[in-house]
Amino acid sequence: MSSTAGKVIKCRAAVAWAPKTPLVIEEVEVAPPKANEVRIKIVATGVCHTDSSFLNGIFVRGVRFPIILGHEGAGIVESVGEGVTKFQPGDHVIPLYVPQCFECRVCTADRTNLCEKIKGTQQQCVMPDGTSRFTCKGQTVYHSMGTSTFSEYTVVADVSLAKIDKRAPLDKVCLIGCGISTGYGAAQRAAKVEKGSICGVWGLGGIGLAAVLGCKNAGASRVFGIDINPKKREIAEKFGCTDFINPLDYPGQNIEEVLIEKTGGGFDYTFECIGNINTMRTAFMSSNPSWGVNILIGISSYEKELSLFPVDIVCGRTLKGTFFGSYRGYDDVPKLVQDYLDKKILIDEMISHTMRLDSINDALHYMHSGDSIRSVVLY
Amino acid sequence: MSSTAGKVIKCRAAVAWAPKTPLVIEEVEVAPPKANEVRIKIVATGVCHTDSSFLNGIFVRGVRFPIILGHEGAGIVESVGEGVTKFQPGDHVIPLYVPQCFECRVCTADRTNLCEKIKGTQQQCVMPDGTSRFTCKGQTVYHSMGTSTFSEYTVVADVSLAKIDKRAPLDKVCLIGCGISTGYGAAQRAAKVEKGSICGVWGLGGIGLAAVLGCKNAGASRVFGIDINPKKREIAEKFGCTDFINPLDYPGQNIEEVLIEKTGGGFDYTFECIGNINTMRTAFMSSNPSWGVNILIGISSYEKELSLFPVDIVCGRTLKGTFFGSYRGYDDVPKLVQDYLDKKILIDEMISHTMRLDSINDALHYMHSGDSIRSVVLY
Repeated sequence: MSSTAGKVIKCRAAVAWAPKTPLVIEEVEVAPPKANEVRIKIVATGVCHTDSSFLNGIFVRGVRFPIILGHEGAGIVESVGEGVTKFQPGDHVIPLYVPQCFECRVCTADRTNLCEKIKGTQQQCVMPDGTSRFTCKGQTVYHSMGTSTFSEYTVVADVSLAKIDKRAPLDKVCLIGCGISTGYGAAQRAAKVEKGSICGVWGLGGIGLAAVLGCKNAGASRVFGIDINPKKREIAEKFGCTDFINPLDYPGQNIEEVLIEKTGGGFDYTFECIGNINTMRTAFMSSNPSWGVNILIGISSYEKELSLFPVDIVCGRTLKGTFFGSYRGYDDVPKLVQDYLDKKILIDEMISHTMRLDSINDALHYMHSGDSIRSVVLY
Repeated sequence: MSSTAGKVIKCRAAVAWAPKTPLVIEEVEVAPPKANEVRIKIVATGVCHTDSSFLNGIFVRGVRFPIILGHEGAGIVESVGEGVTKFQPGDHVIPLYVPQCFECRVCTADRTNLCEKIKGTQQQCVMPDGTSRFTCKGQTVYHSMGTSTFSEYTVVADVSLAKIDKRAPLDKVCLIGCGISTGYGAAQRAAKVEKGSICGVWGLGGIGLAAVLGCKNAGASRVFGIDINPKKREIAEKFGCTDFINPLDYPGQNIEEVLIEKTGGGFDYTFECIGNINTMRTAFMSSNPSWGVNILIGISSYEKELSLFPVDIVCGRTLKGTFFGSYRGYDDVPKLVQDYLDKKILIDEMISHTMRLDSINDALHYMHSGDSIRSVVLY
């Protein structure tokens, strides 16, 4: 039993007080975990584009401010609430923004990984009992994605947590909390890329590079990385791209036709990791018309629609979404950690910047400027 | 050896002389089959919406006139060309507009049924050697879909043919040449509907009813038939619909919301059998947001695009096309004929009208007026 168990913990957190404003480092109070909840000391957290989308209200409806963002963390269990059986203080864990409850109609069936147990309250930015564990300056601060890893301590529902091997460095495997899983699983779980396939990945940020790795490890014969940032070529090759295409190198040419020609008839699998309707359409139209499977990973706003001719779908193409790489976190996250320990998954190479919590706004800045692959905040 | 083998056969056919004009019954000459070709005496042919689309230039590019349409026939082999090993005179057969060659990169892999061997020439409305077997009044008449079943005799490539059980009535199983396979396979092969699923089928023509049957035989717990024609209710129930929904019965209501409420959160599988971008969108948005699989079967023109918000796809929906029910004809058509003989597939109930060749334009008329389910021409 830790000395802090049952008590309010005062610690530092990056608080988003209002939409489209910089995060502010504050002292916050973190209440003890209630029944079926776990309090965690976060050791490291990645900063993901989705945090920025929450902050800027890009695609998410109903975000409540002030809020503590962050969903790509790793840490150590500090204390557990009543009824928690799967975790105990000292466990190394990764919080899950897609929980796995083993009870709901989703977890007990085969169709998807999108557990429904606490979906409603998670979307309302509160714990399953409808309240928050965070306060700052006497004000309630809300939870985001059921994880809120931009705080030294956080509280999550016990269904929102995976226990991992203690040998894994938390400042690396934190990225399995989102970027790695999302991209790698898109290839391995959602698309089920087969040996010998020809794959195309649009957008070589963290998720795109993880998708490249997923394709490569599935035995793809060719993996094209497509990005307008020429600086991405080197890291693309490191992660397994056999071809790097910068569409800007083909002025006046139809890039879909270029890609169809280079792939001998179109991609078997495409992965859109940007969230731009133009690249979604290009990816789709660059896939083989009779069997191309096109995975959408990138998130875009509700302002623009993706338009396609039905005839281009009917004869055999597939368009499919995936969230958190179609993984079931409690079961699969520990396996991904093992894959990292076995050197099947590269993570260290993806971390371009590390920083202390005070500099977290820099991480958001690097992301938007295209200078970083992934930034990790070390507490 | 039949007495006509090796000779030109004069017979009657419905010729489309020009786009958007009625078919004309003419005497045509049908040349003997060349190497790897088979000449067939057609016994019966269904009339499908796609024939009308060819005639009216709705979605097909490059149709050449004059042409003999028809792709839903059944008949008896009259003679075979050199090198044909799988068929002999007297065999009962169904022509395949999606061939199965067992040799191309598609037939030797698992991905799709869309054999590529003769795709190029089939799209150019000629036989694989680049010529036609039909003439009329001294003029070349073109082939359509590699089948041209609106003629008493036709010639097809040997890869475009399936041999079937002689006990099957050709005036019924001809519909396995398109409508039955397309709808039934959409449920069974493309969607792989599971036991207990909740399915929605838009458009209860021949293909829609076959999709309903495919869902029912796959063990779906509920199958909704959705059609604005109230006369479809009775036949919908006969084919296995548990619920019939006429959207016109819900004035002022959002039909997507009605369906999501009635299905407890959205369909597991939807099938669009109309070819209308509005119903495609409705079907998609009525599916479960986390795992709904939406199959597009209906063919629409290149004029209108289907628009969807990417966010409505990303979290888990799938949009997928299927052609000829994802079946491989040589292997699967005989099994579907067997399913009919075993009374697992209803066909007789789908045939609302039969007629002689002289009245084939009536079949097109009934189809557009919504008075027929499927018309069959008996030679």
